[in-house]
Amino acid sequence: MAGIVELLPKEFGFVVLTIIAYCFLNVFMQIQVGRARKKYNVPYPILYATEADSKDYKIYNCIQRGHQNSLEVLPIFFILMVLGGLRHPITCSVLGVVYIVSRFFYFTGYASGDPKGRLPLGKYNVIAILGLMFINIWFGVSLLMA
Amino acid sequence: MAGIVELLPKEFGFVVLTIIAYCFLNVFMQIQVGRARKKYNVPYPILYATEADSKDYKIYNCIQRGHQNSLEVLPIFFILMVLGGLRHPITCSVLGVVYIVSRFFYFTGYASGDPKGRLPLGKYNVIAILGLMFINIWFGVSLLMA
Amino acid sequence: MAGIVELLPKEFGFVVLTIIAYCFLNVFMQIQVGRARKKYNVPYPILYATEADSKDYKIYNCIQRGHQNSLEVLPIFFILMVLGGLRHPITCSVLGVVYIVSRFFYFTGYASGDPKGRLPLGKYNVIAILGLMFINIWFGVSLLMA
Repeated sequence: MAGIVELLPKEFGFVVLTIIAYCFLNVFMQIQVGRARKKYNVPYPILYATEADSKDYKIYNCIQRGHQNSLEVLPIFFILMVLGGLRHPITCSVLGVVYIVSRFFYFTGYASGDPKGRLPLGKYNVIAILGLMFINIWFGVSLLMA
Repeated sequence: MAGIVELLPKEFGFVVLTIIAYCFLNVFMQIQVGRARKKYNVPYPILYATEADSKDYKIYNCIQRGHQNSLEVLPIFFILMVLGGLRHPITCSVLGVVYIVSRFFYFTGYASGDPKGRLPLGKYNVIAILGLMFINIWFGVSLLMA
Repeated sequence: MAGIVELLPKEFGFVVLTIIAYCFLNVFMQIQVGRARKKYNVPYPILYATEADSKDYKIYNCIQRGHQNSLEVLPIFFILMVLGGLRHPITCSVLGVVYIVSRFFYFTGYASGDPKGRLPLGKYNVIAILGLMFINIWFGVSLLMA
């Protein structure tokens, strides 16, 4: 009897690799936050700094917040990728790549120190999430109607 | 050869749609936090406000914390739903709906500005998680004993 | 026709139980943070305390941060366990146990009040994550080459 792996669509490999690509983006953001801690002198366990912690607390907080916002949406991004990817692996992978690229610019735009910088290219991460939600609604409904 | 989607229990569609329902609850909470930012004048990148940021910092922080607490448990909720739902899709979906309804009242109760407001109806989210954990323990053990 | 559960490798049960073991570690950390709130008098909705909140704000913040750091990596840990575990359930479970044990010492070391305490045994959680990432890259690539 074939195992479960043989029954996955071959293109599900793109879904797995897109998820791994996000993991590397997360490592990149962790490194940026770590560097900002050193540069602006914000020691652990402080998450967000105040004026008393560092004169550059505003830019440090923007870098930290850019990462944290990504972390908040991560469970939703992953679950939609995996479930939707069982039926529509290529579409989900494309949306996943849009998400990752947009998240990169969300973070680097935020990390400029001006919160508005997160939006011009970063706002498209929401489009990717909405697309993945739509695919998953369709997937759930079609399972029930099968 | 049948693909993986055809081997999912038809009722797994309820699991997928319950997860999507949570995504909409998350959007609802994001909007409430966004409105509170404007109403109480708490700009980005501030996560939790201090008295120096806003005279209404206490109620704003309750709204923000109600959302953040939900985000913290999200990976656990999702993984238990998906794994347990492979074998017990209807039970998991029912527990998932209990979780979502309870989380709604956790958030709105917290957002009243009194942290105690999160508990009367919101505490049942813990029951749902414990139920999902029990189903998953059973699922894991039964796989090993198969 | 066999359902999806019968097609999972029997050893996937270890993956499920490792994930449940993490859930119990999370409950343990939640309890420690709850106790610290009472002991150091840090009421809800405060996440991180300041000197104005509690004279013991530094140790309380270390306990809180130890838990929050675990929560931040949780979606990545879970998704790598589930996907990689489809093909390499035992290797992933072993790495998962390494992760959980290391995370326990990361938390208790951090909770000592000195952030440096999180690293001697806690740093190995990163090794476990890197191992899981490597397995998932291999899994994704081998799906595409099948």
